[in-house]
Amino acid sequence: MGSGAFTLALVLALSTCVTPVERKLSGLWRNEQDSLMEISALADDGGFQGEYLTRVTLAGGCTRISPLRGAQQQPSEVAWPTFAFTVWWDTFSNATTAFAGQCFVDASGREMLSTTWMLREAVGSLEEDWKATRVGRNVFTRKRTPKGKILHSLSPSCEDAALPVL
Amino acid sequence: MGSGAFTLALVLALSTCVTPVERKLSGLWRNEQDSLMEISALADDGGFQGEYLTRVTLAGGCTRISPLRGAQQQPSEVAWPTFAFTVWWDTFSNATTAFAGQCFVDASGREMLSTTWMLREAVGSLEEDWKATRVGRNVFTRKRTPKGKILHSLSPSCEDAALPVL
Amino acid sequence: MGSGAFTLALVLALSTCVTPVERKLSGLWRNEQDSLMEISALADDGGFQGEYLTRVTLAGGCTRISPLRGAQQQPSEVAWPTFAFTVWWDTFSNATTAFAGQCFVDASGREMLSTTWMLREAVGSLEEDWKATRVGRNVFTRKRTPKGKILHSLSPSCEDAALPVL
Amino acid sequence: MGSGAFTLALVLALSTCVTPVERKLSGLWRNEQDSLMEISALADDGGFQGEYLTRVTLAGGCTRISPLRGAQQQPSEVAWPTFAFTVWWDTFSNATTAFAGQCFVDASGREMLSTTWMLREAVGSLEEDWKATRVGRNVFTRKRTPKGKILHSLSPSCEDAALPVL
Repeated sequence: MGSGAFTLALVLALSTCVTPVERKLSGLWRNEQDSLMEISALADDGGFQGEYLTRVTLAGGCTRISPLRGAQQQPSEVAWPTFAFTVWWDTFSNATTAFAGQCFVDASGREMLSTTWMLREAVGSLEEDWKATRVGRNVFTRKRTPKGKILHSLSPSCEDAALPVL
Repeated sequence: MGSGAFTLALVLALSTCVTPVERKLSGLWRNEQDSLMEISALADDGGFQGEYLTRVTLAGGCTRISPLRGAQQQPSEVAWPTFAFTVWWDTFSNATTAFAGQCFVDASGREMLSTTWMLREAVGSLEEDWKATRVGRNVFTRKRTPKGKILHSLSPSCEDAALPVL
Repeated sequence: MGSGAFTLALVLALSTCVTPVERKLSGLWRNEQDSLMEISALADDGGFQGEYLTRVTLAGGCTRISPLRGAQQQPSEVAWPTFAFTVWWDTFSNATTAFAGQCFVDASGREMLSTTWMLREAVGSLEEDWKATRVGRNVFTRKRTPKGKILHSLSPSCEDAALPVL
Repeated sequence: MGSGAFTLALVLALSTCVTPVERKLSGLWRNEQDSLMEISALADDGGFQGEYLTRVTLAGGCTRISPLRGAQQQPSEVAWPTFAFTVWWDTFSNATTAFAGQCFVDASGREMLSTTWMLREAVGSLEEDWKATRVGRNVFTRKRTPKGKILHSLSPSCEDAALPVL
C-alpha cells in the first residue's frame, strides 16, 4: 500500500471512533461474550451515560439492563482517546464494575474498544476484602443496528433475581 | 467491651458510611499517598460526582483538581455498599482511571474505602495496547475538615502540564 | 451432534492438554503477539521449567530467550488444570512477570492456555511502588514444530540491552 | 538527618534484603493477613523455593503448607530487586496463585516485600473463563524466629479438604 493509500485509510479511521467533533464512542457495542452496551452522545466535558446488558453472571440467572456512566479523556492531541466507565447492577446484584480502555481502529477500519475491567463484589467484612476483586478483559466492536434504543428490545423478560455480572 | 457497647459501636458505624438514608460516601477522603477526593451527595439512583486531587503522577510534575463520576450500588440488603467511579485527568494527562471498592467501618469505628484501581494510559497503536493498563490498591479514610469545598483551596497553583496520575 | 459424538470429542479433548498422565502442558506455545514459550515435561509434583521468547518490550529493543519456572495444579478432579509460572528477563530488563491461567480445549479441539499476567517493574523507591504493576491477558495456542529445542533457533542474534518485556 | 547519617542508613538498608551477595529474600515472611512464607536460599540464577502457609481461603476451611517456587531478578544495577513466585495449593484446592513484587527497606530499616497477586480458580469451561482471576495486594514483613524450618511447626493438624487460598 502506498503512502497515499495509507493516508486515506488513516483519515477514514480518524473519522470513526476518534474524531473529537463527532465523538463516536456513542452507539451500540458488543463484546466477545455477546454482552451489549449503548453509549449516549458525549457531553462537552467528555462525560457520557448509557446502558449495559450483560450475557454472563457470576451466579447464573437472569439479567437486566443496567445503567453505565463514564467519561472519555478529551482527545486533544491523542489520536486514540482513553475512557472509563462504571456499571452498576442495580437490583439484581451486589457487585459493581469499572471498565477502562481505549478506542482503536484496526487495519480493516473496524472500530474496537479495548478494555480492562474490575468486578467488585460486596463482602461481609474487612477480613474478606482480599478476595473481592476480579479482573478481566473485553474487546467491544460496533454493532450495526436499526435506529432507536434497541437495547430495551433485547432485554430479557424474566423477573428473577440474579447475581453479579459483566 | 460488652455486647451492649458493641451494639452501640455497630449502630454508630452504620450511621456513618453505610446507611442508605444518609449515603455518607459523600465527603472528603484521603488515601495513603495523601491524594484527596471529595464526593458529592448521592443522587437517588446512587450516582455521585466529585473532585480528585492526586499527589502522585506517572511522570512527575504539577497536578490539577480532576473531575470524578461514579455510582454506589444501592445497599438494599448489603450492609457495606460497593461503589465505582472514574477520574479523568482533563488537560494535563492522556490517561484515565477507574476505581472500584467497598465501604467499611473498622473495629475502632473508622470509615474506610477499600479500593482497587486501574490506570489506563493512551498508547499510539493497537500493538502497544498490551502494556497500557496498570493496577493498584488504595485505602481512603475520611478527612475531617471545615465546611466548604476545601479541595479548591488545596489545589496547586502551577500551570505546568503533567502526565498521568492517581 | 449426538451424545456419542460428544463423548468422543470429549475424550479427544482430554487426550490433549488435560490428561494427568500425559501432562501435555509441555511443548511449544505461541500467543497473540507472536511470543513463544517452550515448557518442559512436568515433574511428579507438577513443577515445570521452560523458556520464553517475547516479541514485545516496554521500551522496544532486542530481546533474548528468558527462563520460566512454574507449576501446574495437580488435576485430580478438575478436567482443566490451572497453572502459574514466572519469567525473569535476566540480563536485559529489571522487570519480572508472572502468569496464571488454565488449559482449555475449544470446540474444534484446539488447545488453549488462557492466561492473565502481571508485569512488575523495578522502581527506585517505595513512593513509586504504586505504579509498578501492569496487568494483561494472553491466550497461547500450541505451535506445531519439528522436534527439538527450536526456541534457540528463533532467538535474535543482537546483543543490545533492552527493557522489560512480555 | 545529615547526609552522612542518610548514607549510613542507606548502607544499612542495602545490607538487608537487597545485597546481591547475601540474597536476603530468603527467610520467613508474614503478611497483613498473618499468612506466612519461608523462602530458601537463592540459587545462582536467582531461583528459589519455599513454603507458604495461608490464613485465608476462598471457601473457608483448613489449609496446609503449600510449595512455592520463583525467581528474583538479578539485581545487577537495581538497588531493589523485583521477584515473582507461584504457589500451588496442592491437594486442598483447584486454584493457583502468582505473586510479583519488589523488595524495599522503609525509612525505619524494616524490610518489606510489596507484592501484587493473582488467584486463578479452575472453571468448568471456556465460557466461565472470564470470572476466574482475582487480583489483590500483600505486603510481607520479615518475621524473626528461632532457627529452623518453623513453618512446619505452625501447620494446622486438620485433614479436611479446603478451597483456594492466599
